[in-house]
Parts: sequence; structure tokens; C-alpha cells
Amino acid sequence: MITVLAGGVGAARYLAGLVQVVPPDDITAVVNTADDVWLHGLRICPDLDTVTYTLAGAVDAERGWGLAGETWRAVEALARYTPVAPAGSVAGTTWFRLGDADLATHLYRTARLAEGAGLARVTAEVTRAWGVGPRLLPMTEDPVETRLTVAEEGEIGFQEYFVHRRHDEAVSAVRFAGADRSHPGPGVLDALAEAERVVIAPSNPIVSIGPVVAVPGVSEALAARRADVVAVSPIVAGAALRGPADRLLRGLGHEASVVGVARLYTAVAGTLVLDQADAALAGDVEAAGVRPVVAPTVMSGPAEAAALARTTLVA
Amino acid sequence: MITVLAGGVGAARYLAGLVQVVPPDDITAVVNTADDVWLHGLRICPDLDTVTYTLAGAVDAERGWGLAGETWRAVEALARYTPVAPAGSVAGTTWFRLGDADLATHLYRTARLAEGAGLARVTAEVTRAWGVGPRLLPMTEDPVETRLTVAEEGEIGFQEYFVHRRHDEAVSAVRFAGADRSHPGPGVLDALAEAERVVIAPSNPIVSIGPVVAVPGVSEALAARRADVVAVSPIVAGAALRGPADRLLRGLGHEASVVGVARLYTAVAGTLVLDQADAALAGDVEAAGVRPVVAPTVMSGPAEAAALARTTLVA
Repeated sequence: MITVLAGGVGAARYLAGLVQVVPPDDITAVVNTADDVWLHGLRICPDLDTVTYTLAGAVDAERGWGLAGETWRAVEALARYTPVAPAGSVAGTTWFRLGDADLATHLYRTARLAEGAGLARVTAEVTRAWGVGPRLLPMTEDPVETRLTVAEEGEIGFQEYFVHRRHDEAVSAVRFAGADRSHPGPGVLDALAEAERVVIAPSNPIVSIGPVVAVPGVSEALAARRADVVAVSPIVAGAALRGPADRLLRGLGHEASVVGVARLYTAVAGTLVLDQADAALAGDVEAAGVRPVVAPTVMSGPAEAAALARTTLVA
Repeated sequence: MITVLAGGVGAARYLAGLVQVVPPDDITAVVNTADDVWLHGLRICPDLDTVTYTLAGAVDAERGWGLAGETWRAVEALARYTPVAPAGSVAGTTWFRLGDADLATHLYRTARLAEGAGLARVTAEVTRAWGVGPRLLPMTEDPVETRLTVAEEGEIGFQEYFVHRRHDEAVSAVRFAGADRSHPGPGVLDALAEAERVVIAPSNPIVSIGPVVAVPGVSEALAARRADVVAVSPIVAGAALRGPADRLLRGLGHEASVVGVARLYTAVAGTLVLDQADAALAGDVEAAGVRPVVAPTVMSGPAEAAALARTTLVA
């Protein structure tokens, strides 16, 4: 049994590698839900959906999120209402690109939540509909919301930062509102306690893995298994392969390197897989208290993802 | 100033005639909201949307509802989830055909309602976005829900009856749940009091006009203006031109004829426009206490709709 802490695209690709080398039924992913939003009355869970669509082979490979062959009629039609929405309203928002087929997932999820089903149960139904083998567990069913402090303006929401502003903004603080009052989702602590190995996927350590670890009980569960916890660095040669992880690390006073990642994870992960490009930093990782394993980490295709998955199993 | 009591397709076509003969700014429609539903987390107002799309010239003329050139990707994608929805759940429902572009209207409306805007205000925004001249007023902003009693099963909702079962079901009772506790929507009573003429559109008298008149205060307002209230019979030669009005009338013990319509409206309308096909029944309409006006009522195209509108103004 393998349990993976997962954010969005990086984690999804890692998991798509893992299912090639481990029976899918043996895999559990604990997925970040602090990016989830209510928009236009619908509950949207970007990381859960990215992992689901990727494992279903239905993801748009170019974008990394959403469905292949997607159309955008609804969101384009929504633009008609943008000019009539009063100031301060988000009802005419079109920058959050909801695809037509993707909308079905949000419609189904929202209806099930309204019927009283918990997010874990709804997620199980959604993944079953897509024939996804691994079990996806929301990190929590409680409301946790990533909030970022940007210069002058103060706090903004994650999607505002990530999607609307394309993470092109200096961030001086990040917090996970509600995390301190949240509880691990159904099955999460068991999945961490019972796994032979726990992998922290190559997701953004601040805004993807950070919220998962911030759920009370999770860091303790990881610390108790620290020797079996293997993290994969999403930073290669000082840069994020995708997204703002490097800038976020620097903005929050961390080193944007595998060493910075090792220092962030030292309490919860015994091992860090770092790319060959960072082999020279292996000693500094070790000095941060984390055992370095140097291996290719760039998932340029399914074979590379499978190889990385194999590395995390034997590291 | 003309105020029109309106349901869906018939009323929309009548209003599209009326705007040809009266300045659109002089027209107010009080629209049935008892068919409105929450579905998949979205607020759907079928009659308001049918009138809006029709007046915008954007309606699918063949269907009479929804948008021309519509696509159905979202609802088709939703079918993936139908098999995983547990028994009793409506989350996998696909018989309510939500078009992709039409979804934008529901997304916008739902978001604005969640922001605290009333349905009247949201409707004003939606109609402005579509460049619709007449003012559309929801009959109420309170929850009113048409419930129909069908043999053996008991009560079902309006959309279940109308859309899912294609109104192919004997109905023994109809009620408007919540109507007794509802209040007329903003502007409704003024629109009835101040209009030179009030027209009851050729909509279903039971399930389209019935709920409007059931809102406390509306029947009194109509009765006070009875001499200026002109109804158009939706029944021609004993049959509804569209929909189940004739069967509903019979099922509830009324006559499925212009005479039955006159008897239903006698307290609130001084005049009934009936089709030439029913000229022989004019005397019976008169005997029911309603002044009959015989004229063509079948709106086979824009010219016929305009002619009918003219009739209602001079009748």
C-alpha cells in the first residue's frame, strides 16, 4: 500500500507513473482541497479533478488540467453578463475557465453535496465514474482556504492569485484559513498509518502540500512514519518546472532549491528525491537532516513518470 | 402602460407580438416562477428565461425554449455520473436538458442570488444583458412550487411532470406550495394597479397563470381592475395549442374549452379573446360573466402575434 500526498498537475503526473508500477488498488492519494472554491453556485475542486482526469487518461495533456477536447460555450456565454454585474459582484467572472464537459463534474458534485454526501464519498463516486483505480481522499471535508498576502492589497484567494493573476504577483505570506479547526478527511490518517511507503508528490510545497500537512493530525502522522516518507522535489536547478513554487519559496524567505525544500520537509520526510541537475546539493540536503536520493525527476512522458515512481518506491 | 401575466412559450410569443405594436418600455410582464427549480446547485427559472430569450430573438424557434444553436456537452457529460449516483439522488439527472450557453444564465443568476440580490434585480440584469425592452417581474421572490397529484404516486414536482414525464400523466390535483405565505414581487402590484390594460397571456390557466393569481394580493388587484383585464384563451377548439392545458382542465373537473377558461377567469378578467374556431361558444362565455371577443388567436408567426396583441389592446 502506497499513500501519496498530492496537489494538482505534478502529483497527477506522478500518480499516472505510479499506476504503471503498482496495482492501482494499492494506491491512495490524499489530495489538497484548500484551492477548492464555490463559483457560480458550484463546488469546484481543481486538484481532485486534475488527478481524476489525468488518471482517467482524459486530461488535456497540453494544459495539464481540464478535459481533452473541451469546449467553452458556457463560459463564453457568461461573458454576456459581465457588463451587467454590479461592482463587487463575481457573478460575471469568466477568467476561471469552466469547460462545458468539465461543468458536468461540478454539477454532479454540487448536487451530491447538497444531498448531504460528504466530499470523500462524492469523490469516490466521481472517480468510479471515470474508472480511476487509485483511491482519492480529500485531505479534509472541512472548509480550508489558501489565502495569500500580496503587496499593498492584502489577502487574496488562491484562484484569484493562481488563475486570474497567473501567479504573477509577489507573495509575502500564505495561510490556510480554517485549517486549525479542520479534521483529516475520512480514511486519511489510516492511509498514512497503514501505508508501507508515503510519497510527497512533486507538488508545490507551499500551496499544495502545505495545506495537507496543516490539517491537524497529518504532520504528526507523517512524523511518526518519517523513515518511510519519501518526498520528490518539485524544484529542479533552482526553478519550478511549472507554476510559482520557486517564487513563493523566495517570497516567504525560503531557499528556492532542493535544500529549501529539504528544510521545509525535514520534520515529515526522511528522504528527498532530487534531480541529477541538483546532485551537487545532495550534501546540503543531508545537512538539512534529509537523506538525499539523486535520480531523474523530470516527467517528460509516461516512461519518465513510471521511472520516477519506481525511484520513490526503492529510495 | 400594459401589464401582461405570463407563463412560458405562449406568453413569450404574445409578448413578441406586443413589442411590435407598443413601445417595449411601456410593457411589464409579471412572470410565473412556480416552475423554478434548484438543480445541480443552480437556480433555473424556465418561464423567465423563455420570455427573455424569445424577446431577445435568441430562442430556439422550433423548441420554443432554450437558445438557438445550443450545444449539449455539459448535460451529455453528466450522463457519465448517472450510473454512480446512489438511489434517490437527483445528481445524475440528465432529462432536464441544460444547454451549454443557457447554463451561463443559470450560473450568473445563481451567483447573484448567492450574493444577496433578489430575483427581480437579477432578472433586470439578465434582461438588460439581452437588450430586452419590456420589464420582466417575477410574480414573487418567495419560494412557490407547483405540485401535481398523479394517480397512485401522489405529489410530484412540476418539472418532473412537465419535462421528465412530458406531461403524459393524469393529474387529479394541483397546488402551489408556499403561495399562501408568498408576497408579490417588487413592482408587481404597482404594475397591475397602474397599467391602462392588463392582459392575461395565452398561457396554461392552471399551471402558468394559476400560480401568479395565487400570490396573495394579485387576484384582488386584478378584480379591482376587472374591466381592464383581457385574457386570451390558450384553448382553441377544445384543445391546447401546446402543452397539457386541455388535459389538466379536464383532470381537475373543468371544461376544456373557452367556456371553461372563462369560468376560471371570471373573477379577474372582464374580457376573453377567443379564437374564431370557437365563435359558436361566445354566448356561453358571456353567460359565464365574461365579455367574449372573437378574433384569430393562433400565433403562427410574428404577424399573427402582432395582430393578436393589437386585438388585446382594443378588445
